[in-house]
Amino acid sequence: MENYFKKMIRNVPDFPKKGIMFRDITTLIEDKESFRKSADALYEFSKKMKIDKVVGIDSRGFIFGGILANKLDTGFVLIRKPGKLPAETLSQSYMLEYGEDTLEIHKNSINPGDKVLLHDDLLATGGTARAACDLIEKAGGIVVQVSFIIELTFLGGKNKFKDYIVNSLVSYDSE
Amino acid sequence: MENYFKKMIRNVPDFPKKGIMFRDITTLIEDKESFRKSADALYEFSKKMKIDKVVGIDSRGFIFGGILANKLDTGFVLIRKPGKLPAETLSQSYMLEYGEDTLEIHKNSINPGDKVLLHDDLLATGGTARAACDLIEKAGGIVVQVSFIIELTFLGGKNKFKDYIVNSLVSYDSE
Repeated sequence: MENYFKKMIRNVPDFPKKGIMFRDITTLIEDKESFRKSADALYEFSKKMKIDKVVGIDSRGFIFGGILANKLDTGFVLIRKPGKLPAETLSQSYMLEYGEDTLEIHKNSINPGDKVLLHDDLLATGGTARAACDLIEKAGGIVVQVSFIIELTFLGGKNKFKDYIVNSLVSYDSE
Repeated sequence: MENYFKKMIRNVPDFPKKGIMFRDITTLIEDKESFRKSADALYEFSKKMKIDKVVGIDSRGFIFGGILANKLDTGFVLIRKPGKLPAETLSQSYMLEYGEDTLEIHKNSINPGDKVLLHDDLLATGGTARAACDLIEKAGGIVVQVSFIIELTFLGGKNKFKDYIVNSLVSYDSE
């Protein structure tokens, strides 16, 4: 199945900059069969877990995050860049290669003790998803699974999630 | 049902600027019951139409856009701001109150003659969704439905979609 998904993912060289091979999921989701199978595979992995909320990271994380929440019959919570969420927020900053970035979540979007599945499309160095886990825990949630479409194993991001169940549909060992 | 959805939507005064009452769907989607019912209502409206592709507008349009595509068993296509889509794109500019903006879609993401459902969370003046329709038609698609969670009827955006079937879960007659 992983090879099938890989065939449906487009490889775009030199995006967003020279030397980077971008793994483009838009071709995977444009095709109704691979789109359905991707959603089913993510759901199959999670369906026996007790999950109260799915959290998706802006913006590609909203696609399968929303679908997973719908299939698992849970609420869906957004993590976004600063200034995008209209009501009171909690925030979490994290280091990037150059500089830092911040994520926000609405206060009270997660109930204390909620079991949370976090979804994003891509696990690269893991900085964003790690900050998202910290933010969910700050809000009182318990992260029970971290879910991705793609993992770039050569970047070692998984090391940031040693205490979590990590699932991804496909992984790449090298650029 | 509309009143139920309205109760689940949070009203945030003065966002994103003074004098604007922001209709916040995050509370609607955080609650598993209203989230499920919203998805079901959108699906019920569309399930008898022949639809080949669902197109969602970045980024809140990805949430129910993706779910609709999954439920309708179609492919899902992204419309995004310039520079976000990695492969070759078609683009469409449109006027805003001050200045202009541009949307992009991947070339070949829509097959000529594809029947398309366009989804975004909000119909305000309709500029963005109208540009998205133009972009879909430029790509060879046929827009058969334009779908929103919220319509702000007092802004008259619906007039830009006279030739289309427009559906929204809730509408507001005034600020």
